[in-house]
Amino acid sequence: MRAARFHNKGDIRVEDVDQPKVTDGKVLVEVEWCGICGSDLHEYLMGPALLPVTPHPRTGECVPMALGHELCGRIKNPSPGSRFKEGEAVMVDPRVLCGSCLSCKAGQTHCCSSLGYVGGTTTGGYGEFVAVEEERLYPLGSIPLEHAAVIEPLAVVQHAVKESGVKDWKDKTVLVLGGGPIGFALMLILKAHGATNVIVSEPAIIRREQGSEYAQAVINPVKEKVGDRCRELTDGRGVDVVFDCAGVPIALEAGFDAICSSGLYIMVAVWEKPLTLPCWTFLQKHVTVKGVLIFSTEDFEEVMEMVAKGKIPGYEKLITGRIGLDDIVKKGFEELVNNKDKHIKILVSPKNAVAA
Amino acid sequence: MRAARFHNKGDIRVEDVDQPKVTDGKVLVEVEWCGICGSDLHEYLMGPALLPVTPHPRTGECVPMALGHELCGRIKNPSPGSRFKEGEAVMVDPRVLCGSCLSCKAGQTHCCSSLGYVGGTTTGGYGEFVAVEEERLYPLGSIPLEHAAVIEPLAVVQHAVKESGVKDWKDKTVLVLGGGPIGFALMLILKAHGATNVIVSEPAIIRREQGSEYAQAVINPVKEKVGDRCRELTDGRGVDVVFDCAGVPIALEAGFDAICSSGLYIMVAVWEKPLTLPCWTFLQKHVTVKGVLIFSTEDFEEVMEMVAKGKIPGYEKLITGRIGLDDIVKKGFEELVNNKDKHIKILVSPKNAVAA
Repeated sequence: MRAARFHNKGDIRVEDVDQPKVTDGKVLVEVEWCGICGSDLHEYLMGPALLPVTPHPRTGECVPMALGHELCGRIKNPSPGSRFKEGEAVMVDPRVLCGSCLSCKAGQTHCCSSLGYVGGTTTGGYGEFVAVEEERLYPLGSIPLEHAAVIEPLAVVQHAVKESGVKDWKDKTVLVLGGGPIGFALMLILKAHGATNVIVSEPAIIRREQGSEYAQAVINPVKEKVGDRCRELTDGRGVDVVFDCAGVPIALEAGFDAICSSGLYIMVAVWEKPLTLPCWTFLQKHVTVKGVLIFSTEDFEEVMEMVAKGKIPGYEKLITGRIGLDDIVKKGFEELVNNKDKHIKILVSPKNAVAA
Repeated sequence: MRAARFHNKGDIRVEDVDQPKVTDGKVLVEVEWCGICGSDLHEYLMGPALLPVTPHPRTGECVPMALGHELCGRIKNPSPGSRFKEGEAVMVDPRVLCGSCLSCKAGQTHCCSSLGYVGGTTTGGYGEFVAVEEERLYPLGSIPLEHAAVIEPLAVVQHAVKESGVKDWKDKTVLVLGGGPIGFALMLILKAHGATNVIVSEPAIIRREQGSEYAQAVINPVKEKVGDRCRELTDGRGVDVVFDCAGVPIALEAGFDAICSSGLYIMVAVWEKPLTLPCWTFLQKHVTVKGVLIFSTEDFEEVMEMVAKGKIPGYEKLITGRIGLDDIVKKGFEELVNNKDKHIKILVSPKNAVAA
C-alpha cells in the first residue's frame, strides 16, 4: 500500500510499504480521511519526539512509520465473527490502551500509563490501511464520512471541558488562549455545553474571524492587553476559566493576568518550552491549574452521539482543506507551517494521490 | 523602643526607633513573642524581596523596618472605646487588608489584591510595640501567651488544607514534601482533620524524627526514591494529595512522580527558583495543581478555636528555641541558616535583650 512515513525531522516520504498485519481482535480499515494534527506537525518540525525510534515494546513498530491519528474510513475484509460488515463507514478511536495499568482497570483510560496511538506507536492514518482493535471502532451511521475525522479533536476538547468539573457553563466567563484547531474545536464544544461568555485570544486575523462566529469577544493579543480587556468584559473580575490551547509563555502570562481569584486554568496544550508558572500570581490568586490529555472512551462516545444528533452545529467548519497523499508534505505540512493563518484543519485522503 | 530592623541583605540591626503611631482604629500591642518565619529568613538572605524600598502607598513605611509577622502580645494603652483592656493577652492576625478590592469585598480576604503585613508593609513583631487594627486582634483567653505565636503558621496550613477541597481525609493518602515549620504544622493540622495516612519526605534527620510522631511514614529523599516508596505504601497507586512545603525542583519532581492519576498537588511554598512543572507527567496524570497563600479571617478564627479547645495537641512542639532581641541575628537568623536541622521555630521576645 501507499503511505506517507516519517523518517526524520523534515523528512516525510510517500512510499510503498507493507499493509499492516491484522492480528487477533483487530480489523482492517481503509482510511478515507485523516486530519493533520498539531502534534504531527511538531514531529515533522522537531521529531522524532514522541515517536518510537526503537521497536515499541507493545507494537514492535518504530520510525520510519506513518503518522496520523484523526482518521475515519471503511471496514475492509472483516473476519466472519466481526460486528462490522465490508465497506461499513467507521470512526477510529486511535488510542492503543495497555488495558492492564491501574488507570485502565479503573476505567480512567485517559490516564493509561503507557498509552499508545495509531499514528504514534503503530502505523497511522497517512497510509491506505490501518489495523485497529475492533473495540476502538465506531459505526458512523448518519455522520458523513467526509466530516468524521474531526471527531477526534472534538473528543480531546470534550474531555478538557468535562475535566474542568464545571457543571453550569452559562454562569462562567471563559478565555480560550489560541484559536487554532483545538481552540476552535473548544469553542464549538463550549457552545454545545451552554457557554455564552467565551472570549478568544488569537494573533492570526483569519482565526480571529473564524472565532468571532462562536465567541462573544475576540482579542488580538498583539494589539490589546488580554488581561485588561478581559477585566473590562467581566466588571473588573477577570475570567473564571482559562483554556490554554496555545502552550507558549506569552499566552500563559496573559492567561494568569486575565484569570479571576480562585480561577481555573485548564492546560490543553502540550508545551515545547518549559512550562513555568508565574509563582506569585499563581499563589496570590489561588489559581487551580489542571492538566488534561487525550480523552476517555466515554468522551469519544459522547462526541459521536453529539455529532450524530446535530448538537455541534458547524463542526465541519474545522475542515479548511483537503489534499491527496502525494501532496501531504507540500500542501499539508509545509502549508500549515507557512500559511497557518489560512487553515484550521487539513484532511488527507491516503487512497488518492492528489486532491479528489 | 528597641527593634531589630532589616536594612539590607544580611544586615539586621537592633536599634532605638520611634514607637509606631496609633492611628484611628488601631491599638498598641506590646509584643511578647514573635516567630522567625521562612519568609523573614528569605529577606535576610536575599532581600529586600517583598519589603517596600520606597514608602508603601498605604502604610507610608519602607526599609529599614522591623520584620516579624507571627506575633502575640499584650494590649497597651487602649483607647476608651476599645473592646480590649490594658494588659489583655492577644494574638495578632498580621494581615493588612485593603478592604476595597473585589476579593476583600467578597470576603475572600486571602486573595486581597494588595495584601500587606505587619512585619512586611508596616513595623513588625521584632520591635517592642506594634500598632494593629483592632479587628485583627483576638483575645487569647485560655491559650498560653508563650505558645500563641505559632497560631499564625497554623492558620497558613489550615487554609491550605481547606483550600484542597477534600472533605474526608480518612480516605486520602497524603505526601508532605518538607518537614520544616510549615510541613510540621501541616502534619498537626492534617491530624486534626482526621488524616491517618500521611507520608513526609524530609532530608534532615531531626525533622524526620519530629515528623515520625505525626506521620505514618517518613522518607529520606536522599536515600530513597520518594515515588517508589509512596507506591509501595499505596498498593502501587501513588498518593492522592501532595502538599509542597519545600519549593525546590527536586522535591517537585519527586512529588509529581509520587502522585496518583487525577491527584491533587497543593503548592504551599513560595518559590525562589522558577516554578517549572514536568509538563508531560502533569498532563498525562491529569494532575490538579492549586496555589495557596496566607489565610482568610475564617481560617485564623478556626485555628484560634481549635487551639483553645485542645484540638491541635502538641502544637507547642513547633517551638524549638526562644531568644531575646539582642540575639536575633546570631541565635536567630544565623542559627536557622547554619543549624536549621536543630530547629523548627525560634521565637523572639522583643522586650527582653537576652533569652528570658
